[in-house]
Order: sequence, then structure tokens, then C-alpha cells
Amino acid sequence: METLRIYCDMKLSETAARLLRESVGPHELVLPGKPAASVLAAPEADPAFDTVEIAFGQPAVAAVLGSPKLRWLHVSSAGFTRYDTPEFRAAAKERGLVVSNSSEVYAEACAQHVFAFMLAQSRKLPEGLRTRTGSGTPEWWSIRGAGTMLRGQRVVILGYGGIAAHLVKMLAPFGMQVSALRRQPRGDEPVPIVTFEQLPAALAEADHVVNILPDNAASHHFINAERLRLMKPGAIFYNIGRGTTVDQPALVEALQSRLGAAWLDVTDPEPLPEDHPLLALPNCYITPHVAGGHLNESETLVRHFIGNFLRFLAGAPLQDRVM
Amino acid sequence: METLRIYCDMKLSETAARLLRESVGPHELVLPGKPAASVLAAPEADPAFDTVEIAFGQPAVAAVLGSPKLRWLHVSSAGFTRYDTPEFRAAAKERGLVVSNSSEVYAEACAQHVFAFMLAQSRKLPEGLRTRTGSGTPEWWSIRGAGTMLRGQRVVILGYGGIAAHLVKMLAPFGMQVSALRRQPRGDEPVPIVTFEQLPAALAEADHVVNILPDNAASHHFINAERLRLMKPGAIFYNIGRGTTVDQPALVEALQSRLGAAWLDVTDPEPLPEDHPLLALPNCYITPHVAGGHLNESETLVRHFIGNFLRFLAGAPLQDRVM
Repeated sequence: METLRIYCDMKLSETAARLLRESVGPHELVLPGKPAASVLAAPEADPAFDTVEIAFGQPAVAAVLGSPKLRWLHVSSAGFTRYDTPEFRAAAKERGLVVSNSSEVYAEACAQHVFAFMLAQSRKLPEGLRTRTGSGTPEWWSIRGAGTMLRGQRVVILGYGGIAAHLVKMLAPFGMQVSALRRQPRGDEPVPIVTFEQLPAALAEADHVVNILPDNAASHHFINAERLRLMKPGAIFYNIGRGTTVDQPALVEALQSRLGAAWLDVTDPEPLPEDHPLLALPNCYITPHVAGGHLNESETLVRHFIGNFLRFLAGAPLQDRVM
Repeated sequence: METLRIYCDMKLSETAARLLRESVGPHELVLPGKPAASVLAAPEADPAFDTVEIAFGQPAVAAVLGSPKLRWLHVSSAGFTRYDTPEFRAAAKERGLVVSNSSEVYAEACAQHVFAFMLAQSRKLPEGLRTRTGSGTPEWWSIRGAGTMLRGQRVVILGYGGIAAHLVKMLAPFGMQVSALRRQPRGDEPVPIVTFEQLPAALAEADHVVNILPDNAASHHFINAERLRLMKPGAIFYNIGRGTTVDQPALVEALQSRLGAAWLDVTDPEPLPEDHPLLALPNCYITPHVAGGHLNESETLVRHFIGNFLRFLAGAPLQDRVM
């Protein structure tokens, strides 16, 4: 049996690191001297990278393309923006490089996060948790009377993938009218797919617009002033995709004029500068890019990688393959 | 046809008041001079009350028992503590007084509220919304890494009724292990029913303890030091029933020593005094008794009453009849 070398630049818990070491068995794990502080930080160059067949983590594009032996890259996040360019895709195809991501690891946690946003909005949780008012006061009536029932409301999801699939299941008991925009519909989606031509009408009717678009050339500022103007007054906008898919000055204007609220787990940049107008808006709620996170996350990532590693060894199709 | 007189002491929106007036048709609506400020405030005595056959709202117990003509009381809340005594029940039975409540009006909103609590806890929303940290900081890791997946976790619901029925449906897509305590099981509950004998074991295993108990003699301080000690370390406690069902000093101690967090929509008293120890605990989250509230709530209440009024006229069984 060929002994493979696997490069891993992830910051792993001790348990996850041991799990990875023990699971790859006779194959060799290559660790960089200094792991990246975050999956979103730019990694540093590492000569050891040129000796491996497999990479698990967030290696630099130049390192991947320059590596003479790399056959499979397993990205340790759901997003894979830095690799999602025509140039990279062409180079990967040319040299037979397989690319998979960790979509499923984050999909349910991300769906749970955006659904937590929807319920917190519907129940006015931030306002209710902040106040110390008693019942009967005008403030109390304003909170108590502002809760909305999800039942019967309309949701349009922008970007149908693993996260949306989980979200659609979570929404099922609420009897909502859910539709989704998908770049390349497969025909097996459990909700009606909205085409780009139908999107303006869908945006105009939606009570909730859930943006899960990844960051690429086609999605840059997809949520722009024009699309925000299409949304109906009082609509709620959510973003757990990437901050760059939103024209933020246009969002500020929309939140001041027509939208009910925005719930964002991602912004551009992250974090926003202290004086950014989004931070001053009372109807803009922001969490710091934590949607996919969960307890023992690095163990889940390692388990997902190991599942794919066994498939790779067996020559079977990889899960979450993206190239 | 007999013309009935219907007393309504509720504070209604203009739309709801018109709806009520128009819907009772030839029957006579009797309004007090000054409506109660809240469903929880004590109503004042009103001589007009003695002239009515039907009451819709929150009339005083003495007024109800002293009224010579009253045949049906429709309580405008889900809770009906003030009427839920052996004396009142006996007197109602004696004189043939029918009592119904507005349980279904609040059930779905209450379930949505406690489910919003569960998701906010699982996603660490209060911490995420409060911080302005960027990714990679210790604070960021502490939030991102603390999210938990609901899948596979155990929930025990104390008090199975309309709210629990909605909650169980909402939890279904998450693959949780749900059980419920019910005073009088009917055999048609969609989850395993826990007996009082089985409760200690259920509390010891639960990741989430959801208290929906109403306030009565049997439920007073039901959540006491002993039951709190049974709960497993890190368990999350929720209360959307009544504040009096919890021994609050014991809850404070439990939150300091073993519980993960408490999410309360009800306390005793409401609101808590500013120096109450629950308000100082970082793992205690409180909303001001707003769980059942929703937009156009008084219209929903009126519609529910009108449905029952038509049933009353037709001699059909009332919805949400409690006595």
C-alpha cells in the first residue's frame, strides 16, 4: 500500500488531533509549525506542503497550485471562496485535483443559527431580554404586541444547498410558504425553486429573505439597492452566507426606510469598525460569524474528513465534493 | 330567540372591539367604564356584571360567584389561576357555570417563545449579539465553540397541554428525545409520558427542562431545591408557565452551582425588584411575561371567543373548556 502524506493546517483540540492521528493509521500526518489562528486568516507558506498528496484545512491558493504532488484538497469550512475562481477550477481540472469541503459539518449548525434568528425576531427576544418593565406599561405592550407568528408567512431562501436543506426541514412544522433561489436547480429540491426572472416577485412577497449565498464573482453585492427596494415594507433580511454578497450602504438605507430588521452573522469586513452605521441601527442584529460553530466542532470536522479519507482510499465518490 | 347580555372587561384594539360588537349581533355587549390595564391586574367591581349571562375577560372571582345570572365564563388568558380552586370549581359545578379559557390563542405563540429560548441558548445568541469581537479572539472561540446542536438532546416538558403539543411538533425535525409530565395522561400524547415516580430519572437525564405548569396548589414551588439538584450539570431550565411554580432562591443557587442556564418568561413577582439575585446572574435570561403575545392578539382572542359563542348558542361543546 502506498503511504500517503496528509497536510493539516487546522487548529485542532487535543482530542480531535489525537483522533486524526490515530485514524489516518499508517499514513503520515504533516503539521505546519504554526497553525492558522482562524479558518478565515491567511495561512503562511510552508515548504512541507510540496511533499503531500492530501491537504486538509485552508492552504493558500498558490501553495495548492504550486504543489507538485497534491491530489485532494479537503477544505475545513463550508465556504471555499479563495478556491472558487475560474482560474483555480481550470487548474484543478487540468491536473486532476479533487476538492471537497466541510459543508455538512456546518450545515445543520448554520441552519439552526439562522432559524434562531427567525424565532428571536418573531418573539422580539432582544427587546424582551433587555427590558425590566412590568406588564401593562406602554413598553410592555410594544414588546408583547409585536411578536409575530411564523405560521403562514413567506420565506425566500437565496442559495439552496446543505444549509437550506436543513432549514427547510426545521421550518416544516410552522406551515410557512418557503421557496428558494438556486443557481443550478437539480429538480429534487423539496420547495419550489425561484428562477432569476421570478426573483423580483418572490422578494416583493417575502416576509423573510434568508441569504445563504457563497462569496464568488456572481454573488458579489447580490443584495443591492435595487433588490432591497423590491422587498416589502417590514420584511426581515438574514445573512449567514458571506458579508460581501450585500451592498452594506444600501442595506443601511433599507433598514432606515423599509425593512423590518436585519440579522447578520457575516459582514464586510468582520468585525465592522466601531463607527459603522449598521452598528448604530436598532433594527440590525449582528453575531460575529459564529453560525457554523458548535461544541466539539473540530472533532466533527475530523470525523467528516476521515469519512472522506476512507472514500478516497477506496476510490469512492467523496462527500461534499465541490470540484 | 333569547337576547343574551355579554360582559367584556378586556382592553381591545379598535378593530377587535368592532369585530366583537358586530359578531355578537342582536345580543347585547356590556362594557365596564374602565377596562383593566392588563389581563393580570385585579379588576374592579361593577354592578352591571350582575345583569349578564356571559362574561369574556378576567372578572373577579367574587363577582363571578355572586352573579345571579352568569352561565358561561370565557377567560381571556390561558392561565386561570384565580378560578382554579376547589371552592370555585365546586361552586361552578353547583350552579352549572361553564368555564372556558383562551388556551389555543396563546398556545402556539407560547410554544414559539420557549422554542426561541431553546434556539437562542443553543446558538449563544445573547453573547453573540452583544460582542463586537472579530474571529480568532479567545472571546470569539468561547462563543463559536459553545454552540450546541439540539439533535439527539433530551427534553422533558413539565405540563402537557396545548403549548406542549405545539412545542413537540416544533421539536420534531431536530431528532430530540422528548418526554412530558402530565397530571392526567389521556393516552393520546405523541411523546412518552413521565409519571411522578419516573420524574427524578427524567430530570437527571434531561438536557432541557421546560416548565409549562399552571399555577395552582399542586404546582406551587414544584421546581424546588430537591428537583433542581436532580438535574444534570449544565442542563438548561425554561419557565413559561407561572413564576410561582419555582422556588426562586433555590433556582439562584442551582444557577450558581450546576445548571447551565435558565430562560424565564415568568417570575414571582413580575417584574422582579431591581436588586433580585436572578437579575445579577449572567446565565439567567428573562423576558417580561410576553410569551403568548402576538400581533393582533386581541383580534385572535375575540375570534376565539366568537367561535365559542356560536358553539354556546348551538349547545355544542366549547373549545378549551376547563370547568
